[in-house]
Amino acid sequence: MDEVKKGLEGVVVDESRVCKVDGEEGKIWYAGYDMDDLARESSYEELLFLLRNDRLPSGDELDGIRDEMAARRALPDGVAELVDREAERTAPMDLLRTSVSALASYDDEADNLDDPTDKCLGVLAKMPTVIARAHRVREGEEPVEPRDDLGHAENFLYTLHGEEPTEEEASAMDSTFILYAEHGMNASTFSACVTASTLANVYSSLTSAVGTLQGRLHGGATETVIDMLEDVGDASNAEPFVEEKVSNKGKIPGFGHRVYETVDPRCAHFRRHIETLNPDSELLAVADAVREEVEARLGDKGIFPNTDLYAGALYRELGVPPAFYTTLFAASRAAGWSAHIAEQIEDNRIMRPRVKFVGETGRGYVPVDER
Amino acid sequence: MDEVKKGLEGVVVDESRVCKVDGEEGKIWYAGYDMDDLARESSYEELLFLLRNDRLPSGDELDGIRDEMAARRALPDGVAELVDREAERTAPMDLLRTSVSALASYDDEADNLDDPTDKCLGVLAKMPTVIARAHRVREGEEPVEPRDDLGHAENFLYTLHGEEPTEEEASAMDSTFILYAEHGMNASTFSACVTASTLANVYSSLTSAVGTLQGRLHGGATETVIDMLEDVGDASNAEPFVEEKVSNKGKIPGFGHRVYETVDPRCAHFRRHIETLNPDSELLAVADAVREEVEARLGDKGIFPNTDLYAGALYRELGVPPAFYTTLFAASRAAGWSAHIAEQIEDNRIMRPRVKFVGETGRGYVPVDER
Repeated sequence: MDEVKKGLEGVVVDESRVCKVDGEEGKIWYAGYDMDDLARESSYEELLFLLRNDRLPSGDELDGIRDEMAARRALPDGVAELVDREAERTAPMDLLRTSVSALASYDDEADNLDDPTDKCLGVLAKMPTVIARAHRVREGEEPVEPRDDLGHAENFLYTLHGEEPTEEEASAMDSTFILYAEHGMNASTFSACVTASTLANVYSSLTSAVGTLQGRLHGGATETVIDMLEDVGDASNAEPFVEEKVSNKGKIPGFGHRVYETVDPRCAHFRRHIETLNPDSELLAVADAVREEVEARLGDKGIFPNTDLYAGALYRELGVPPAFYTTLFAASRAAGWSAHIAEQIEDNRIMRPRVKFVGETGRGYVPVDER
Repeated sequence: MDEVKKGLEGVVVDESRVCKVDGEEGKIWYAGYDMDDLARESSYEELLFLLRNDRLPSGDELDGIRDEMAARRALPDGVAELVDREAERTAPMDLLRTSVSALASYDDEADNLDDPTDKCLGVLAKMPTVIARAHRVREGEEPVEPRDDLGHAENFLYTLHGEEPTEEEASAMDSTFILYAEHGMNASTFSACVTASTLANVYSSLTSAVGTLQGRLHGGATETVIDMLEDVGDASNAEPFVEEKVSNKGKIPGFGHRVYETVDPRCAHFRRHIETLNPDSELLAVADAVREEVEARLGDKGIFPNTDLYAGALYRELGVPPAFYTTLFAASRAAGWSAHIAEQIEDNRIMRPRVKFVGETGRGYVPVDER
């Protein structure tokens, strides 16, 4: 009998050109470009163009995709009503999953797969609108309609808060979209590919991905880090906190990643933006202090900070409430989901693994009145 | 580099006790019991009990699960409103996906995984209600509220048509639920497991499964068979139709299955119910004639009828419109999805396969005004 590959560990499911994660060197390449360069110099819209076309856009092309995304931001009335009706009682990731699914109702050609990326972009453009609207409804505030003269990240903060962000805030938000945009074949991306492999429409595939990211083993860690940093409270408490965790072999949120043997390269960007926005951030001071203590004790065991350590603190500076952190991870990662969906459809085989049957056969059926 | 297992062909992803499909003998075992016995003598509710408890229920236990399912049939107001608002413009599988996702909004403990099967049963009880309601709204008819004094299948037909079915109709409908309930690790079931593997809630996992079944390589074939049978029109046209298909090596809908080397054992049950309900069924005569011609020409190549050949004709006798066939496949298969979700959570590892990176790295970023 063939070996059981639980969790598909070590199984190579396909070829891909989207992203290379080099865990040894601590580098990420998006379609051949260094993630560090993109996080510093590019924009989410430029990244979307790159992932779609496998090259960077000209100035006109960049304006083109910006305008196109901006024009597709508004929610159909039915989806806006859905958000308004359900936001208060619904966990944000559940609501995002339902909203992405519901967008299929407003696409007359939902099943058309001639240009899956284009359809995905229509969903990507609307995910931040869903998130901002849900937040405002929960806070009892009037929803703010998206504007088409703002960039993707800038517009998100505008619709979230009802006022235009500063240039630094917009730039930081844009970076978070880029930093979370793609990371190879993780569980949510794989889920999108499994669904796409039956030639399901992109609403099905993206909905599967959101639902899979909803699980606490995948999304959700950023929220946990913020809780930890608040529990620690002050940089001076970092040493006893880490000491206690290490001696009890407790897991410390925000540290360790199966892929990286060094610091996750995305950390520096999250950290840099917190410093720009608020050099006196207490959460940053606590995070740095915890990091110093962890690296001193566990660095030689390969335990380094991951994105979660600083991401929450940056979201906080941008006024995003913790309950919505994972939805922003989803709205960012949707770029990667779309790229992998397109690859799956382009050279498709339906995903049908086997299972090893370990149950019984031949149990005799007895009618209920004879049992 | 490791071999790429495209479509995960031949990969054994886990152990399972739910179902054994014996393609050589043409037998299916549900939790150890012969599917043939269950399709003839059991009920969908009894099967749900069996899959949940790995044993058949006593009379009292059977009454218990019947009552429990019946009590959970009604849709929350918000989901009923969603169906009413979207049914006309939305493809039935898209609407079912959105509705299953939206049910999370009405579960205060949506993320609780202590008893995933119980939560799944709450969704299973409501799927036929969504389907019947969507059909009636599309037809411009008043929705019919479910009754709690009818069995699962009987109540579905009652809510679909607004009148109680005959005993034969209810029995045939019940059989279809059992016949489609489970079939090992197909793409939709696998998708449910991938989503469950992040410890996502059951609404996420079931939503992924519905979305994956939405793809035309998985669900949807039954509709195609009905089109074919209507095109053939009369039993006397079967010979030239099949002759032409065979000589052009065209695929004939309703025949062939990757697993079976003989007739799919579910065929006989679908066929038997059509005969009971309408011995003069023209579609049945055409299907039988096509089958005879195909088996005579291709039987020695292992091409035999699959479920799709007779399923559509039976649904037609039961007054289910073709656009809703796949939703009934989903509402039936949800039994299997639930059983596999429970197995996944009970002994979980997150699904994270690898990909073989075949793209570039080291492309140099050039600012847009220098491009």
